[in-house]
Amino acid sequence: MAGGFRAPSTGAVVRAVLFDTFGTVVDWRSGIAAAVGGFAAAHGLAVDPGAFADAWRARYQPAMRAVRSGARAFTVLDVLHRENLDDVLRAHGLDPAGFDSAELDGLSRAWHFLPPWPDSVPGISEIKAGYVVGPLSNGNTALLLDMAKAAGLPWDLILGSDVTRAYKPDAAAYRRPADYLGLDPSQVMLVAAHPADLAGARDAGLATAFVARPDEYGPTRAGGASQATASEAPTAGDWDLNGESIVDLARQL
Amino acid sequence: MAGGFRAPSTGAVVRAVLFDTFGTVVDWRSGIAAAVGGFAAAHGLAVDPGAFADAWRARYQPAMRAVRSGARAFTVLDVLHRENLDDVLRAHGLDPAGFDSAELDGLSRAWHFLPPWPDSVPGISEIKAGYVVGPLSNGNTALLLDMAKAAGLPWDLILGSDVTRAYKPDAAAYRRPADYLGLDPSQVMLVAAHPADLAGARDAGLATAFVARPDEYGPTRAGGASQATASEAPTAGDWDLNGESIVDLARQL
Repeated sequence: MAGGFRAPSTGAVVRAVLFDTFGTVVDWRSGIAAAVGGFAAAHGLAVDPGAFADAWRARYQPAMRAVRSGARAFTVLDVLHRENLDDVLRAHGLDPAGFDSAELDGLSRAWHFLPPWPDSVPGISEIKAGYVVGPLSNGNTALLLDMAKAAGLPWDLILGSDVTRAYKPDAAAYRRPADYLGLDPSQVMLVAAHPADLAGARDAGLATAFVARPDEYGPTRAGGASQATASEAPTAGDWDLNGESIVDLARQL
Repeated sequence: MAGGFRAPSTGAVVRAVLFDTFGTVVDWRSGIAAAVGGFAAAHGLAVDPGAFADAWRARYQPAMRAVRSGARAFTVLDVLHRENLDDVLRAHGLDPAGFDSAELDGLSRAWHFLPPWPDSVPGISEIKAGYVVGPLSNGNTALLLDMAKAAGLPWDLILGSDVTRAYKPDAAAYRRPADYLGLDPSQVMLVAAHPADLAGARDAGLATAFVARPDEYGPTRAGGASQATASEAPTAGDWDLNGESIVDLARQL
């Protein structure tokens, strides 16, 4: 954490350490399940909050795909989350029109207020002493700002996907933050719990660090996951660093 | 600083307090004079560092004017500062080509590492407890990031003029940050030491707070300023708040 880590993959000294957020820094499933549980209780709905959260998250990549392909103009994640909520409600046999739309807006804003993993704030704080730290997330700036204020994430700066106008794993989503920082992509490291994200960063010229989040899809995942995206927790791979937590990565940096 | 200040001018509750930086948060003249003094000593130049700093700063508004008018494509402040340095050297009878260009680049980067006024860090820290805090500066993101890291400015986020693609006092320079924050302009307050900047913010729909910086152009200004821009230190005016310091503003917020 004193700074100056040289990434084996690029040979460059890392100056900024940027973090994927959903799943890597914050526990989206617990936060969304809590919000959904409250919503379901208020309306007397028989809904499994964890399964609802998984279903909502499962619509995340498909919704961004239309933007990435150019089929749809850039649309901020807040809007995609809100649209996907309507879809998940319908998939549960519930008509979105049967609820107050402001209440659904509020439920969708639960994505702004997700709890951090226990090591996130101390680990990022340690890394901040030697590097620029910030999110590199598909979240929009207002979402990431609310998340940071609520969770106490000590970012140096926040450049959301509405600033870069690109969704990971498009190369522009990784390279434009480096441009704003006045750095070469090789001077930027992405920390993520997801191999596909890290592979996108590596292809764009960034250094990479994997952090294990075995509980991203809940503690029962190992015992039998209920859906494809939750089938297997990623493990350490061929990245510049591999950590058991962000605090562990801070020690290696 | 508990949050929730309602601005008389707009009737809206302020959620974010954004700060002009050069002169308002940091003492550009002292920082630039120190860097120029070191440069002059290294080269045995008979240059008054304070006057050189004033002359460099005097070229700031004219350089942005070409961008604001549309005569020149958006150009980041780092580039304008570097061009202006060449001009100031020439005005002092010095040929920029006579110096190592990397050394001039380094001198120009002194604008990234300006010292804060003594009340800036404690005042911004207090305001941060109740509001989103960030710069609203003509500086580019990399400049503002270096400044924040070096001075310990505890911003929640940094959106430089290279993100908003506009220079104050253009209305877009004030309104685009509000958009990224997911706020109405009336929910954003600009803190600045310069009435023209505050007037631009007010015209764009923001709340405004003046902070007095009588020493911006040096402690001798009151005794006889040497140039037009330093003729008279601005004083309190018809703004939502007026403060003797950022700590004083924090108390009023």
